[in-house]
Amino acid sequence: MGKHYQALLEKINEIHDLEKSLWILSWDREVNMPSQGSAVRTQQMTTLRKLHHQLYTADKTGELIENAESELNGASYDSTEASLVRYLKRDYAETKQIPEDYVRRVSEVNGKALPAWKEAREQSDFSIFAPHLAAVIELSREEVEYREYEDEKYDALLKQYERGMTTADVRAVFDAVKEAVLPLIQAISEKNHLVDDSALHQPFDVNKQKETAPYFARAVGYDFDKGHLGTAAHPFAASFSRNDARITTRWNPNFLNPFLFGVMHECGHAMYEQGTGPELERTPLARGTSMGIHESQSRMFENLVGRSRGFWNTHYNHLQNAFPQQLGSISLEQFYRAINKVQPSFIRVEADELTYNMHIILRFELEQAMLNGDLEVNDVPTAWNDKMAELLGVTPANDAVGCLQDIHWTRPSFGYFPTYALGNFYSAQILEAAIKQSPQIETELARGQVDALHQWLRENIHQHGKKYDSAELITRATGRPLTHEPFVAYAHKKFGEIYQL
Amino acid sequence: MGKHYQALLEKINEIHDLEKSLWILSWDREVNMPSQGSAVRTQQMTTLRKLHHQLYTADKTGELIENAESELNGASYDSTEASLVRYLKRDYAETKQIPEDYVRRVSEVNGKALPAWKEAREQSDFSIFAPHLAAVIELSREEVEYREYEDEKYDALLKQYERGMTTADVRAVFDAVKEAVLPLIQAISEKNHLVDDSALHQPFDVNKQKETAPYFARAVGYDFDKGHLGTAAHPFAASFSRNDARITTRWNPNFLNPFLFGVMHECGHAMYEQGTGPELERTPLARGTSMGIHESQSRMFENLVGRSRGFWNTHYNHLQNAFPQQLGSISLEQFYRAINKVQPSFIRVEADELTYNMHIILRFELEQAMLNGDLEVNDVPTAWNDKMAELLGVTPANDAVGCLQDIHWTRPSFGYFPTYALGNFYSAQILEAAIKQSPQIETELARGQVDALHQWLRENIHQHGKKYDSAELITRATGRPLTHEPFVAYAHKKFGEIYQL
Repeated sequence: MGKHYQALLEKINEIHDLEKSLWILSWDREVNMPSQGSAVRTQQMTTLRKLHHQLYTADKTGELIENAESELNGASYDSTEASLVRYLKRDYAETKQIPEDYVRRVSEVNGKALPAWKEAREQSDFSIFAPHLAAVIELSREEVEYREYEDEKYDALLKQYERGMTTADVRAVFDAVKEAVLPLIQAISEKNHLVDDSALHQPFDVNKQKETAPYFARAVGYDFDKGHLGTAAHPFAASFSRNDARITTRWNPNFLNPFLFGVMHECGHAMYEQGTGPELERTPLARGTSMGIHESQSRMFENLVGRSRGFWNTHYNHLQNAFPQQLGSISLEQFYRAINKVQPSFIRVEADELTYNMHIILRFELEQAMLNGDLEVNDVPTAWNDKMAELLGVTPANDAVGCLQDIHWTRPSFGYFPTYALGNFYSAQILEAAIKQSPQIETELARGQVDALHQWLRENIHQHGKKYDSAELITRATGRPLTHEPFVAYAHKKFGEIYQL
Repeated sequence: MGKHYQALLEKINEIHDLEKSLWILSWDREVNMPSQGSAVRTQQMTTLRKLHHQLYTADKTGELIENAESELNGASYDSTEASLVRYLKRDYAETKQIPEDYVRRVSEVNGKALPAWKEAREQSDFSIFAPHLAAVIELSREEVEYREYEDEKYDALLKQYERGMTTADVRAVFDAVKEAVLPLIQAISEKNHLVDDSALHQPFDVNKQKETAPYFARAVGYDFDKGHLGTAAHPFAASFSRNDARITTRWNPNFLNPFLFGVMHECGHAMYEQGTGPELERTPLARGTSMGIHESQSRMFENLVGRSRGFWNTHYNHLQNAFPQQLGSISLEQFYRAINKVQPSFIRVEADELTYNMHIILRFELEQAMLNGDLEVNDVPTAWNDKMAELLGVTPANDAVGCLQDIHWTRPSFGYFPTYALGNFYSAQILEAAIKQSPQIETELARGQVDALHQWLRENIHQHGKKYDSAELITRATGRPLTHEPFVAYAHKKFGEIYQL
């Protein structure tokens, strides 16, 4: 390691510490902060964000990057050194484009939008949130001006979350999935009687849920010596280092799924961060490479593992023992079919594997319309409900379970939603490749074990962190770029069997 | 508000945000962080501490203070503006004396000492902690060199926690208390049979403790809309703003006191912070003025309120209902006497109101001996046990309940311990003055109510934050400097009655 690289690394470590501190404040805000703490917390986060931006975008940082680059010459493309310099060079230039004042305003708008959204959702009153959404859209349009794009404005935002994919690319994959999956959803709707999921909708004691959750986190491979489970209204995972990657969940007293599959989902995210290479610690490479690849890991453990026959063959017993009154008389087969019921519904995070993608397509289309000025804020609830009817044939009972259900629009994050569906498609492609390379994985999964899968993921996905962009990573790991085919094949096989199609 | 003051305030707000962020990371480390997160968290905290130190001690900050001072002329001594400038001028000059490198080393030593202390305590093996204590003593000696003192080295450290008191002052008060209280403890020991506290030492279900704790926090006036209760091995209170002042506690499955009186104790601290004036928010004046005054608030609610007849006349019913098996057959009078049992024991935080002060005197004396080189690290366990025998007539069963019981020596904090006993003496003096000025307080306390007391404390103590040093504040609030007399009078009256002396 040369002295210029060493100097760069020290600076980057500090900047990264500041960013992670901001994450700790943010996590705490969602999990522990009392209601009245919000105003000052926003100011504290604004200050940290501003200091981070100042330190990172200082000319000094640019010099350090340049000096380190000139010193690299021999380092291989795959080395940590070359990867870090490569990443920083691009990211530094892009971040310099964003004015400090803009960063401050994003923080302020978010600080006000978040409690307003919570109140709007509680009262199911979109008008409380509308002015804040208008402010978020304005900020998003401003951001487009700072970021380069070739064809569509939305491209400028999308690339922050899924580098290398354009809006047109995403549209093409989504269209292919829609073409293949909508007829499947339609066919299933005619066989609705084959699956009864009423067992999942019963009173489940919340304290018992809290006692049971760690078992299922461990069952998918989550390590509590490097993690923590908290409660949050809108669950998420957050990592403060590879040895402190946390999950959150919510507890629904009348529905089993939110905590059970929510925990496995967030574990997928957190385990990705726990698996990043130790040599990347305290650098911006120590995280998942893109939102889509990140989501592939959460969906892997929530769905491909967590909703599989093999998993429940092994673990159903434990769940039955935790809730004997509710599940004692429900057979394994009944339970397996229940948790895989396909049924159009309002809430994205509780949707099944097939209709979920339609929720995303809806948001993808509305976001473009808002950004391009084709949809006024006040018309969002109507547009939302119209699209729900078009794509899923259902109309939300109110805005709380409609356009107010997600936290995402409390800050400029257009372009984020599509990555959720991309995650589904990545996950199927990744598992297909993993099993082809290591048949042991399939053998283990059939017994509810995840060790071989984790080993493959760690080697081929996790350890690389942000060294490679998602397009490059998926090709290295699976031998080809993202395609909808493995997901469509998986969907037809699994749900064709369940619904006797 | 002049423009120079405005500029100073903006800078100070940011610096304070950074300090509070550091507190949030520290709180999270004790309450939520997984075991393996420790190493990187230490680095993150070191970075924040370094940035805070850089920002605060920058020449720019000094200029802003000077400019603001020159602009003040008309502002009254009591105004927020004059008070902030007055405080900053002194604190800035003192902080400039501390090298940045020293601050970094304190953070590093603490980061290693903390897990070592935990392990040492768990294994009751002082040798695990000894090298870390040696490093802490070295740092303390170094710190003495940076801070001015006239007579004794210990003065240089003490003044950080209790400004205006010298080691000799503290010794004088401690001696007066010792003289009055040791005979009282002696007399009580001969009437030991009059009080039976075995009811407190039974199995108390931890989940039930957790359910019950908020009631008693509210009973002493704590507001959960501005607070939060977490679990910590070594309980503490921490405030991130006046609207986010938190408490922590521990749950002992076989002893009622730790959670019950621990919660009321920490509430006293947190309510002090919640009561600071809103105009002080985001400045260093928004906190308790000294550790001693802070402790007077915690001891006020733990002991003067929380161990009074009036409080339990009203609230014992609730406690009995929570633990009917354990307390159903224990009368109010039995319970009142049990929670006021005087009995020499090993653990400071669980000691009664009288022997508690002897625990502090022990630490006060050992700290001076360590600082002055009169006591070697390896001899600390023996010295501790010898002093325990001398002051309290008992010998700890092992170091875990002896010299390893406190977290304090994991960082340079010599001079902190004496403030715990000073808090006891302040609290008696404050309550005496409050009742003299507002007799309604006594009437309410006899009914287990705390509103009038809170109102008086808010007006005379809390709202001022750090505007006045402790000596000035206690004189303004009670009409005289600190004296041991109210505490001694309180002790004789209360325990004379219980023990029929």
